[in-house]
Amino acid sequence: MNSILLNPDHTLSAGQYRLTARQQQHISKVIKAEAGAVLRVGLLNGQMGEGIYEPPSEGFDQNKEISDCGYIHSLNLFRSPPAPLPMVLVMALPRPNMLKRTLHNITAMGVKELYLIHSAKVEKSYWQSPVLQPESIEQCLLEGLEQAKDTLMPKLTFVPRFRPFVEDQLPALLNNKMGLLAHPYKAIRCPVDLQQPCVLALGPEGGWNEFEVEKWLEAGMQAVHLGERILKVETVVPALLSRLYPS
Amino acid sequence: MNSILLNPDHTLSAGQYRLTARQQQHISKVIKAEAGAVLRVGLLNGQMGEGIYEPPSEGFDQNKEISDCGYIHSLNLFRSPPAPLPMVLVMALPRPNMLKRTLHNITAMGVKELYLIHSAKVEKSYWQSPVLQPESIEQCLLEGLEQAKDTLMPKLTFVPRFRPFVEDQLPALLNNKMGLLAHPYKAIRCPVDLQQPCVLALGPEGGWNEFEVEKWLEAGMQAVHLGERILKVETVVPALLSRLYPS
Repeated sequence: MNSILLNPDHTLSAGQYRLTARQQQHISKVIKAEAGAVLRVGLLNGQMGEGIYEPPSEGFDQNKEISDCGYIHSLNLFRSPPAPLPMVLVMALPRPNMLKRTLHNITAMGVKELYLIHSAKVEKSYWQSPVLQPESIEQCLLEGLEQAKDTLMPKLTFVPRFRPFVEDQLPALLNNKMGLLAHPYKAIRCPVDLQQPCVLALGPEGGWNEFEVEKWLEAGMQAVHLGERILKVETVVPALLSRLYPS
Repeated sequence: MNSILLNPDHTLSAGQYRLTARQQQHISKVIKAEAGAVLRVGLLNGQMGEGIYEPPSEGFDQNKEISDCGYIHSLNLFRSPPAPLPMVLVMALPRPNMLKRTLHNITAMGVKELYLIHSAKVEKSYWQSPVLQPESIEQCLLEGLEQAKDTLMPKLTFVPRFRPFVEDQLPALLNNKMGLLAHPYKAIRCPVDLQQPCVLALGPEGGWNEFEVEKWLEAGMQAVHLGERILKVETVVPALLSRLYPS
């Protein structure tokens, strides 16, 4: 947690923002801040800067309700969040044990528009995972933002049906963007330092199937490869985003 | 495991290579191969191709000794492993729960010369972790190679003392290589698609301290930054390697 993201919905009174239990725990146990400490903060979907910490009145007990958390006041916001990546990421839904880490990475690297889509090689059971619950997802995204000192919440959409997305929604997304399909056949080398926005589609373990590849290509996507090495999803995501849009 | 790495030390008779328990388990439980199946294999530090699978004579029991594993015979090796990255990676020893994943990533991405070094912000206890045992390390590296369909074992050196390394060993490593220090102050933007070999030094959580930075710079390293976002070690490694040497 490299900055503390304050939520306008958690306003106590004007200019006072209540901390969440997770934030309070971090401040108490890792930062070990005392009353009056100046901490790096950001306002959700807003500016970044500093704020002054006021601990919970009765001390912090991580087993108690959230009302026991402290708050931040006297905000001094003087900085914009880092620039978003100019891309839309469409990714086959990863297996649940990979999903949290992947969402964290994607958010920390600055993706703001993300679709998690079904594919023939995505097991149906993945869609039932508790990790997909809104609270769990929101938590991953918030942690990614706090890691990267960002404030802009990504927009994440679940797409349980492949075909209507690729046929009906993709063309509009591709407007003024280069479409890149991570797929090793009929592929060009993946661009480096791309100077235009893109839609990037990243397949499941085992890749897209033939029908899916055909649908992506029909929609105007270009297949790109990343060389001979096969990398795990959690490795390939930072590797790909970083080569496309090196910061 | 995208290829099975056979160890010449595990030769049964000419052209027959015994599988390890881990490999046997993967073949029995994930690939579910039968006798005579053609599998993708590589010879440790050698060529890659295919081989024929012979299961253990009495069936596979993962609780039994390694002598119950099957073997691969009739190798047909027709392909070189992917090119190594032309770099030396010097990294502050990560915390033990990050180390395995980081070693796996680094190996899968093709680093062949790796130094894990002490730094003021590396906790002394990290050096006592069981993850640093040679068998545990070798396992991580082998898994990284099998993930990426590579065969060339990286050379990993532990450096428990910072100063003698930077003063005495680094100058020789820097010969004909660009020295890059991941550090945000007095830094230029990290190169993209670097057309020459490099030595890259990557700090601990919290960064190198002032003395360390000075020593790196004295040795001829150039500080480079990666933009405003702060990423976890496990994210920054693939992001950095991929922008320096996109495949």
